[in-house]
Amino acid sequence: MPEYCVVLVEPKYSGNIGSVARCMKNFGLRELYLVKPCAIDDDAYMMAVHAGDVLDRARIFDDFEDALGAVDLAIATTSIIEEHRKACLRKAFTLKEVVEEISDFNGKIGLFFGREDYGLYNEEIKRCDILITIPTSEEYPSLNLSHAVCICLYELFSHGFDRRVRDRNIGTKEKEKMMEFLTKLLETIDYPEHKMEKAQITLRRVLGKAKLTELEYHTLMGILRETMDRLSSI
Amino acid sequence: MPEYCVVLVEPKYSGNIGSVARCMKNFGLRELYLVKPCAIDDDAYMMAVHAGDVLDRARIFDDFEDALGAVDLAIATTSIIEEHRKACLRKAFTLKEVVEEISDFNGKIGLFFGREDYGLYNEEIKRCDILITIPTSEEYPSLNLSHAVCICLYELFSHGFDRRVRDRNIGTKEKEKMMEFLTKLLETIDYPEHKMEKAQITLRRVLGKAKLTELEYHTLMGILRETMDRLSSI
Repeated sequence: MPEYCVVLVEPKYSGNIGSVARCMKNFGLRELYLVKPCAIDDDAYMMAVHAGDVLDRARIFDDFEDALGAVDLAIATTSIIEEHRKACLRKAFTLKEVVEEISDFNGKIGLFFGREDYGLYNEEIKRCDILITIPTSEEYPSLNLSHAVCICLYELFSHGFDRRVRDRNIGTKEKEKMMEFLTKLLETIDYPEHKMEKAQITLRRVLGKAKLTELEYHTLMGILRETMDRLSSI
Repeated sequence: MPEYCVVLVEPKYSGNIGSVARCMKNFGLRELYLVKPCAIDDDAYMMAVHAGDVLDRARIFDDFEDALGAVDLAIATTSIIEEHRKACLRKAFTLKEVVEEISDFNGKIGLFFGREDYGLYNEEIKRCDILITIPTSEEYPSLNLSHAVCICLYELFSHGFDRRVRDRNIGTKEKEKMMEFLTKLLETIDYPEHKMEKAQITLRRVLGKAKLTELEYHTLMGILRETMDRLSSI
């Protein structure tokens, strides 16, 4: 059973933060993370109505990476997607497609939403495990921030929750460790420089989809470690 | 194929009308009906952003019955439901339950939303054909008006949304090929005999969960192949 938190990255309008807080409480969520937000003023509390406590408890981060480190699975949201087959970075799932998959993730899932005018930067999307989008009209695809949050939480809430006890899934720390090893491996085998970044993103996305358990993680790391030892003894 | 329109009954805040207009355009709807609304002022246009045309074209009705007469099927929305078996008036479906049913209705479907503070009156609900509700937390069930509209339109829109063409996922053949390579890798690094089978099963399960696409498969196989080449040159 995952825990969910909403992460707003550099929100500019205090009223939007309040609207998001209200939505969160409407769908039973409590944890709001804010990365470099605007000041939370009266507008926020007015829009939050009965969800002022969500605002009071919000965690503020100075840095995107710190927020990322506070969750175990990072889901980025975007309204700008790439459709072609070879697309990599902004190739997105719809929420309906992933909601089933993530419902048995055992850890903290962060839903990352970008700036009102610009969304998440490419650099930020690269660092996340899964990318999702909300299907909208092509003529005017840009949803208001709190509406985007609202749709995501509605979809999660109405999907219902699976209560089977599972192994803990690995978190950010372990995933970073594994990515570090995989990157070292790529370097050791002289993987072509110009294909390097794409390979790293691919590996990260595959790990995101695989939702490794701790046991799986240790098995894979054992194999990786031994492989690296052999390679470096050449 | 139905046509949809959104009917706001006695909305009190102009900004909410604007937010609703924006949502409508986000999901490709044009027709906004307003029953005895507040004045549509600058707030509405500010919140509508690029959907000012929806506000310009809105039809104003003096009476609920007139709006009802302008649609062929009336769907009322409520956050207050009756759960018991014999309930009648406020016994509501969820939107997910009705979306399939109404998708082949041939005529104009009106989605009726009530006042911000009070919703639709019982007398109004009685006059509608279908009553729906959005499942929310019991602690704080009252959604902001534009958020309620947004969720309904999202659900309608994504129901008819054609899944984009996706990469083919790899099949048994490719998975076997990859397992063969991985097994060879395990042998090459002298993975302990007694742990071998468990490692193979783990790898297979991880691949199962990751549901690799063709592109991901080729990237991973490229990395594996090069790794094997290096190892075997020792």
